[in-house]
Amino acid sequence: MRWIEASKSAAVGAAADNLSAIEAEAAAIVGRIRQEGSSAVQDYARRFDGYEADGFAVEKSIISGAAGALEEADRQAIMAMIRSVATFHAEQGYRGYQKETWPGIMCERRADALSCAGLYVPGGSAPLISSLVMMAIPARLAGVGRAYVVTPPDENGQLNAVLAATLDLLGVHEVYLLGGAQAVGAMACGVAGLPRADKIFGPGNAWVAAAKQCVAQWPGGPAIDLPAGPSEVMVIADDTADPAFVAADLLAQAEHDPLARITLLALDGFDQTACEAELSRQLANLPRRQIAAEAMSQALGISCADRDEAIGVANRLAPEHLIIQTRLPRDIAVQVRTAGGIFIGPWTPETLGDYAAGPNHILPTGGAGRAWSGVTVESFQRTTTLIEATAPGLARSASTFMRLAEMEGLEAHAASLKIRLAALEKEGLSSTGPARRSAIVRRVTKETDITIEVDLDRSGPCAISTGVGFYDHMLEQVARHGGFALNVMCRGDLDIDPHHTIEDVALALGEALSRALGDRKGIARFGFELPMDEARAGVWIDLSGRPFAVFEGAIPGDSVGEFPVAMTEHVFRSLSEQLKAAIQVKVEGENAHHMIEACFKALGRALRQAIRIEDDSIASTKGVL
Amino acid sequence: MRWIEASKSAAVGAAADNLSAIEAEAAAIVGRIRQEGSSAVQDYARRFDGYEADGFAVEKSIISGAAGALEEADRQAIMAMIRSVATFHAEQGYRGYQKETWPGIMCERRADALSCAGLYVPGGSAPLISSLVMMAIPARLAGVGRAYVVTPPDENGQLNAVLAATLDLLGVHEVYLLGGAQAVGAMACGVAGLPRADKIFGPGNAWVAAAKQCVAQWPGGPAIDLPAGPSEVMVIADDTADPAFVAADLLAQAEHDPLARITLLALDGFDQTACEAELSRQLANLPRRQIAAEAMSQALGISCADRDEAIGVANRLAPEHLIIQTRLPRDIAVQVRTAGGIFIGPWTPETLGDYAAGPNHILPTGGAGRAWSGVTVESFQRTTTLIEATAPGLARSASTFMRLAEMEGLEAHAASLKIRLAALEKEGLSSTGPARRSAIVRRVTKETDITIEVDLDRSGPCAISTGVGFYDHMLEQVARHGGFALNVMCRGDLDIDPHHTIEDVALALGEALSRALGDRKGIARFGFELPMDEARAGVWIDLSGRPFAVFEGAIPGDSVGEFPVAMTEHVFRSLSEQLKAAIQVKVEGENAHHMIEACFKALGRALRQAIRIEDDSIASTKGVL
Repeated sequence: MRWIEASKSAAVGAAADNLSAIEAEAAAIVGRIRQEGSSAVQDYARRFDGYEADGFAVEKSIISGAAGALEEADRQAIMAMIRSVATFHAEQGYRGYQKETWPGIMCERRADALSCAGLYVPGGSAPLISSLVMMAIPARLAGVGRAYVVTPPDENGQLNAVLAATLDLLGVHEVYLLGGAQAVGAMACGVAGLPRADKIFGPGNAWVAAAKQCVAQWPGGPAIDLPAGPSEVMVIADDTADPAFVAADLLAQAEHDPLARITLLALDGFDQTACEAELSRQLANLPRRQIAAEAMSQALGISCADRDEAIGVANRLAPEHLIIQTRLPRDIAVQVRTAGGIFIGPWTPETLGDYAAGPNHILPTGGAGRAWSGVTVESFQRTTTLIEATAPGLARSASTFMRLAEMEGLEAHAASLKIRLAALEKEGLSSTGPARRSAIVRRVTKETDITIEVDLDRSGPCAISTGVGFYDHMLEQVARHGGFALNVMCRGDLDIDPHHTIEDVALALGEALSRALGDRKGIARFGFELPMDEARAGVWIDLSGRPFAVFEGAIPGDSVGEFPVAMTEHVFRSLSEQLKAAIQVKVEGENAHHMIEACFKALGRALRQAIRIEDDSIASTKGVL
Repeated sequence: MRWIEASKSAAVGAAADNLSAIEAEAAAIVGRIRQEGSSAVQDYARRFDGYEADGFAVEKSIISGAAGALEEADRQAIMAMIRSVATFHAEQGYRGYQKETWPGIMCERRADALSCAGLYVPGGSAPLISSLVMMAIPARLAGVGRAYVVTPPDENGQLNAVLAATLDLLGVHEVYLLGGAQAVGAMACGVAGLPRADKIFGPGNAWVAAAKQCVAQWPGGPAIDLPAGPSEVMVIADDTADPAFVAADLLAQAEHDPLARITLLALDGFDQTACEAELSRQLANLPRRQIAAEAMSQALGISCADRDEAIGVANRLAPEHLIIQTRLPRDIAVQVRTAGGIFIGPWTPETLGDYAAGPNHILPTGGAGRAWSGVTVESFQRTTTLIEATAPGLARSASTFMRLAEMEGLEAHAASLKIRLAALEKEGLSSTGPARRSAIVRRVTKETDITIEVDLDRSGPCAISTGVGFYDHMLEQVARHGGFALNVMCRGDLDIDPHHTIEDVALALGEALSRALGDRKGIARFGFELPMDEARAGVWIDLSGRPFAVFEGAIPGDSVGEFPVAMTEHVFRSLSEQLKAAIQVKVEGENAHHMIEACFKALGRALRQAIRIEDDSIASTKGVL
């Protein structure tokens, strides 16, 4: 271990740039795979892995049931790892939301899972089952369409048995036996039987890391989880730190890789001599002492004058793992904003985080922590934004947008607004005319996802899709007879039953009508009665601002199409609640279809009367509705 | 416009790979800057921008007050853009949270803002003030330490006046006049007077894009927001679409760039002939018709047999902007999971999103939307995970972690646990011994961020940092006299006053003691009385499971150090509430310091008695506490 003063550490962490030979080789490998496809992959697999089979896919039967071969304690340990990683990651994920940023302009952010993710699990002396769990769990929580695993064959050309067992416990059955840069090339190109990955995840050696960087540069190439480099640990220790613990933590990193980067920041009073002695003593007992000794020969000790200096060095180097063994370690943790993962206090060795504490162990290295995070559920997602404007929403805001387009000198942008305004003016709606009575309502719950757009001052269009055919038909009656534009789009849990869909659409429709009515100034109220063959229905509405529902009449039968007859009354109640209106319905007849349709038609007609602007006054002696 | 069938569109979007000359030039520029530093930047600025000044920083006085020169309507439009972008983005950001995944192992995710972000605003014919807003607002919402702007000088070697005004309205005053690949190189290296950026944001021409890709490859280099390419629009249109609207939307994209990618998916009944005629007619009127015509000559029309085919093409091409002008457009929007931004229905031209609807307009291009999102508040953040275990937490879980380390063949990992278990065994705590009474409590509100760790079965250590010196001293009394280990770390809103800090720490301490006590089996209850010089205090505790507090005695004066005297009683109430204990305090004396200290000491002594395990029974006739 080499020791320097913190004041002379500015050059530390300046990146070693001697990987260019490996980079060139990796680039050549993935480049040839991009040109030649599967045959190049097969050639490399033969050459580097000694793998001769035709395909790389592992048969499902090899994975299914593989967990049965585990000792019970091993199975329990793996299950505990899966559980705690899932518990911790379950809180993650991009937040989706809706926001009406201008009246009549509804904006939304939606989080979507990736369609296809390739998870690379390194092979080598032992299978990194923990790395597999650290990718498979967030991929599942994100809801990735297809997440498959690529890993090198073991020395017998097989899938490692412990890895197979872990895959079995995770329920991941799509696995390919392929290693190194050629595995990355095959994932990126979607050749040799592997699906093309939208994003490639996973740690790996220098060839794998270089190949990932390379394919991520291709236009239209896959994204990657992180720019990867050799693993790193930094320990900050003061006089309260146990030198034996510190030595053990440094060695736990050193055994990974001869290139592992190991840094010890010593505060005043830390016993460096005891720590060096412990390093020698503990190293002698390690099975992987050769690797660890090589890494330790490059390890760096930095003497820091005080805590602030140590915090400064930590923030600058942005270590993958930071272990804080000082008094008040949380106080240091709060001030280090660039580390991948932080381990606080004497009883938190990095090993906890490497396996099963819960947080992800795939973390940024080589200073990337200044801007990158470790792998998260968000790593397996992307966000889309959606915008939907109503005609009045557009008309009201267009002048601002046009002014901005003109400031940037983009006239065609402004023209795309002008041509729409011209169309609206033909209908009598100009951007300078009176405000239009329209609304967009988004209602998203675990059961339904609904968008409803109403425009009371246009007679159409009307487009309705709830997934319940008869209900679509009924809502169309309301809009057509009501004489207003209505757009309803609902994705509901129809696999359970149509109840939520019918109810929630009625609630959202009520809200949309209520919002479109605005201050209800100048509107009529009251109702309508109509016959339909043998049936007869009357609907009386008072847009009073107060919900109240009365439903009289018994409709025979259980359902019409998928529409449960009993939901008829429910719809009127939900509507009344959100529209904030008294709605009374009376229906007579024999045929359920006729009776229900008569109710909805009468509702439309009653609404047509009620929403009509008659004069400039509020239709109430109270002066407010 | 060239038309093909969707079934023959598989090759569409295969990336053009003819940028390599530009890539090589950009790489040479940033490479030389990396070697030579500022002098290289100055050389390129002279050569490419004709810029001769010594430094690149714009004087603050040029920006401050620049908004005053705007016409009022322009100022209003820019402010409206800033407001709506802020409104939409305010909902974003990584969620931080805590989770105790194993008893005694507290895990946390924390969202940190980047320290330093470089925002590139392209110059050219007109200043992209909207791009500036799309970066500056999320950077501010994330809380980026330092976000600075780099933009090319205008033809007079100055900062464009409209851009200056927008910077003024945004309150961004750190600006450098530098363009192209050399700007990216200077940001990445932190030379020529620019701070080194942790991440580089912003659109730009092909040189800028190539330079960003290049510096992102450097080990320890900056991250970038997105792999950028020419701008793209895709319109899906059916028979309900107005061909004039569609033509206007295609042209609004075409005027950006001769390389802009324009795709029209036509469903059955869309009037292609009318659309082509509108394209010719509208194009003739555009100031930028030369650029637009060149882009339109490469535009592609794809005839789709049905909506599903169109959705398939859209998902494969992952367009930056997708405009849906069909019946039930939301139904298509739901199924496209790769677009950057989606514009729904006839009244939502892309121009809304380009400027001021709210969502970000910096979006993935060239197929990157399969895995990348547009710019978000999260783009300006990173996450860190933190783990803290108590000694008992480690002891309880160590066997699982060691088993996992051994399965992976990493003995030094297991050893870092074994050495700690050995230390604990010396204290009589083995992993197989009786459960220890310890707890970690995290309590995070807008006012305070607190971590408290107690271990009732160890007499130390004790480390307390609340920011209120006297309170630290008092809590230390409790731990020392109580005979248990206590670690308190609080960051509170002391700039307001110490009230929240004192109260919340008492609440968290009560909760920690309560959780550590577990089922309260075998504990004693009752209390203690002690003198301190002229003062005398008694504290009687019943760890009954029910909160109740009595405080008798009047302490003179307003405060001791920063500790308000009146908070003394408050602390005991808060503690009682969360500890679920009856606590009665009686204090007499003359000196406030003495009286308060006597109370806390007596509390410690009373706790020492009360938490002692006396036998195996519950100290209540009820049999449960």
